Amino acid sequence: MHKPVLALAALSLAVPAAANITPVPPTLEEAADRAHSSDRYAWDFVEGITTEVGPRQAGTEAEKRGRDWAVQWLKAQGFRNVADEPFEMQTWVPGELHKAEILSPFAQPLVVQPLGGTASTGPEGITAEVVYFRTVDELRAAPDGSLTGKIAYISHSMTRTQDGSQYGFAGPARWVGSGIAAQKGAVATVIKSVGTDYHRNPHTGGAGFPDGVAPTPAGALSLPDAANLERMFARAKGKPVVMKLTLTPQLLGTTTSGNVVGEIVGRDPSLPPVLVACHIDSWWNGTGAFDDGAGCGIVAAAAKHVSHSGQPLRTIRVLMAGAEEVGLFGSVAYSAAHIDEPIAVGLESDFGADRIWKFESNFRDSNPALHAKIASTVARFGVSNGTAVATGGADINIARDQKTAIIDLQQDGTRYFDLHHTPDDTLDKIDPVQLRQNVAVWTQVVGILANEPGPILPKE
Amino acid sequence: MHKPVLALAALSLAVPAAANITPVPPTLEEAADRAHSSDRYAWDFVEGITTEVGPRQAGTEAEKRGRDWAVQWLKAQGFRNVADEPFEMQTWVPGELHKAEILSPFAQPLVVQPLGGTASTGPEGITAEVVYFRTVDELRAAPDGSLTGKIAYISHSMTRTQDGSQYGFAGPARWVGSGIAAQKGAVATVIKSVGTDYHRNPHTGGAGFPDGVAPTPAGALSLPDAANLERMFARAKGKPVVMKLTLTPQLLGTTTSGNVVGEIVGRDPSLPPVLVACHIDSWWNGTGAFDDGAGCGIVAAAAKHVSHSGQPLRTIRVLMAGAEEVGLFGSVAYSAAHIDEPIAVGLESDFGADRIWKFESNFRDSNPALHAKIASTVARFGVSNGTAVATGGADINIARDQKTAIIDLQQDGTRYFDLHHTPDDTLDKIDPVQLRQNVAVWTQVVGILANEPGPILPKE
Repeated sequence: MHKPVLALAALSLAVPAAANITPVPPTLEEAADRAHSSDRYAWDFVEGITTEVGPRQAGTEAEKRGRDWAVQWLKAQGFRNVADEPFEMQTWVPGELHKAEILSPFAQPLVVQPLGGTASTGPEGITAEVVYFRTVDELRAAPDGSLTGKIAYISHSMTRTQDGSQYGFAGPARWVGSGIAAQKGAVATVIKSVGTDYHRNPHTGGAGFPDGVAPTPAGALSLPDAANLERMFARAKGKPVVMKLTLTPQLLGTTTSGNVVGEIVGRDPSLPPVLVACHIDSWWNGTGAFDDGAGCGIVAAAAKHVSHSGQPLRTIRVLMAGAEEVGLFGSVAYSAAHIDEPIAVGLESDFGADRIWKFESNFRDSNPALHAKIASTVARFGVSNGTAVATGGADINIARDQKTAIIDLQQDGTRYFDLHHTPDDTLDKIDPVQLRQNVAVWTQVVGILANEPGPILPKE
Repeated sequence: MHKPVLALAALSLAVPAAANITPVPPTLEEAADRAHSSDRYAWDFVEGITTEVGPRQAGTEAEKRGRDWAVQWLKAQGFRNVADEPFEMQTWVPGELHKAEILSPFAQPLVVQPLGGTASTGPEGITAEVVYFRTVDELRAAPDGSLTGKIAYISHSMTRTQDGSQYGFAGPARWVGSGIAAQKGAVATVIKSVGTDYHRNPHTGGAGFPDGVAPTPAGALSLPDAANLERMFARAKGKPVVMKLTLTPQLLGTTTSGNVVGEIVGRDPSLPPVLVACHIDSWWNGTGAFDDGAGCGIVAAAAKHVSHSGQPLRTIRVLMAGAEEVGLFGSVAYSAAHIDEPIAVGLESDFGADRIWKFESNFRDSNPALHAKIASTVARFGVSNGTAVATGGADINIARDQKTAIIDLQQDGTRYFDLHHTPDDTLDKIDPVQLRQNVAVWTQVVGILANEPGPILPKE
């Protein structure tokens, strides 16, 4: 019983003049600066959901626990109109057995995890010769039928980039590789993880198959395992490399997911709201800290800090979308359900928790005064004024569908693909200082948008 | 058929004057400098054994394949008296199921691997409340019987150190933790991995149980998982934290391991040889690159480079010990078998592949001229003259048993415990430049020792 009393005593000593100051709401700039120095909402959100829920595979009971947790958290922080808006989806789960073994010429196990949407080998596994493709283009060039009965292995050469652009360069190995291999007769596919780290943690993610092509088993080798397999090919000197692959994902059929929403209600709710988005689901193998617990923490924290500077003119609506990872199902469902409710602008945080370094909008030309105002106010946080046209992220389909204003607050992605879709996506990867910089920039930007009386993207 | 001809043609163009030069053996200093700039033996060894064999758990057929591979490699490089000297051992293997799940209050899976020598939970697992100890000393202070029916969780706070000394500080959590917990009634133990990284890769290693205390199941959580469990305790606010732990290691009984040996035979084989050692086995979860494929590559490469400068006076004997990880069985067996064959000096490489920064001997006072000579010749590689008395590593029991000269070539251990005993111990972690610096220093030191006519450690 004594400890709380002592803690309160210590607190009152630490701020002795508090009782004599009449509280004055901070200005928006002050609110953003306070977020920069001492935000605790974003960390509390991402620590809480990763610790108390952990992995949140789309469509499963774990994602449901994540949505329930987020609903409770938003309510506890005073958000209004908090809801979990359900939608149905086809749900894939990874199953229990994830094994790859080289049987010859050099027997040893490799670390593998299945790709989202792929088929099961059955618990008995598949044993076949591996055919090595250095790039997706090499695979594309293979004759039809040339992979019959074989396992395709697809490599790539991805490096770290601040803007994350090499995801587009290397991603096709996962996005389309197993589909192309299946068309050419492959019984299964393994890929070099689409990532930039050096740890025994595979990068999963969705794999697509063309219409009419039945999904095959497909998995990602960790980067050290992929390098080892490639060395085996070099040392095998033409002898066949034979792998036993065991992956047992399952399709659960139709289950329910949902989009969690909550609002800071504006002074004029008739004005279109500012939509700030993230996604609540994660892959099963990590705890969804960088992707995207942090993003949800950032956007919700920013909404709170804006409210500290006084009730905003427009409503700020937080959307924590369900089932992003497996096909943007939540974003699609949200847009379908709310397409007739205009929003003013959409922004998303879904690229980790490292510092924001560039601001981009799609109204630089059509609303230059507002664009310049935002750019000048975030400059103090090290954010430059970008010239590219913002296109938004996965969770704000509605902004593209409604052709509204969009802002991209570009985060430093240098280490994002070290962690993306891996077991290593855990809380310890988040730098609290950089997380707070995100909250500060978001507070400044969302606060300006939510107090903007005129249209943000003037109709053409 | 054309490519080899073209390659030879290219080679002859690249060294056009080669035919006109009479080969002169390099001096020892030149041999060490060549190793520094262009050694390929050490990399070839560690790349080869990690690619063509991979994990080499002591006492298993995988370790046997590793020893066979090393025997072939040593013969191919021209070593003499190459042999695999067998010994028997009690063999533990990790089994297939390695799972930890928190069931309440916050359900989520944690990443765990079993500790060497520990018991099986059976495939059905053990479900019990977890009791949290921040240190081994806190566990020691728990009353006898207080852990009956519980799972003990033991933490520690280890940081990176260049000399690796915090292994001694944090290691007891693994070395004695599960034994103490078992004495107090615990049904199982999980520890925070004894390591310094932030990846979902547990650090295994041997666990000891006191005489008369039956081994219990025990596993290491990865560091992110341990941090998550500790946050769960903080957020549980006194509610019991319940874990289901499933670990199924097995005892195979008596199997055969062996010590691989090979020699650069000296001009005077009657002189006691220079013994250079490493270990050939690894834990099952990595490919044994840092621990200790690199060490075997370094010592064998150094012996080769010394021979390039002319046949040494003394024989250089390479010992690649079996079954080091599980109890130094190979080192003990080697000393027992060879105790009556005096060696002149023992040195071991078993601390990764990062640069050597300090030279230590146990003859600084008794043979100061030789100590100073070695120190002065390795200074050009950035190696300082240490004042501590060298005690040698795990694989040179014979040097301690015979009370011979010992040298320690201290490697930079800053990142060693990021990788030690984890799945992440793979080839990609080795920096070729630092590996070559090791080979250069070893070449210089072993070359001096192998050409020293007098006793290295004068008898007192």
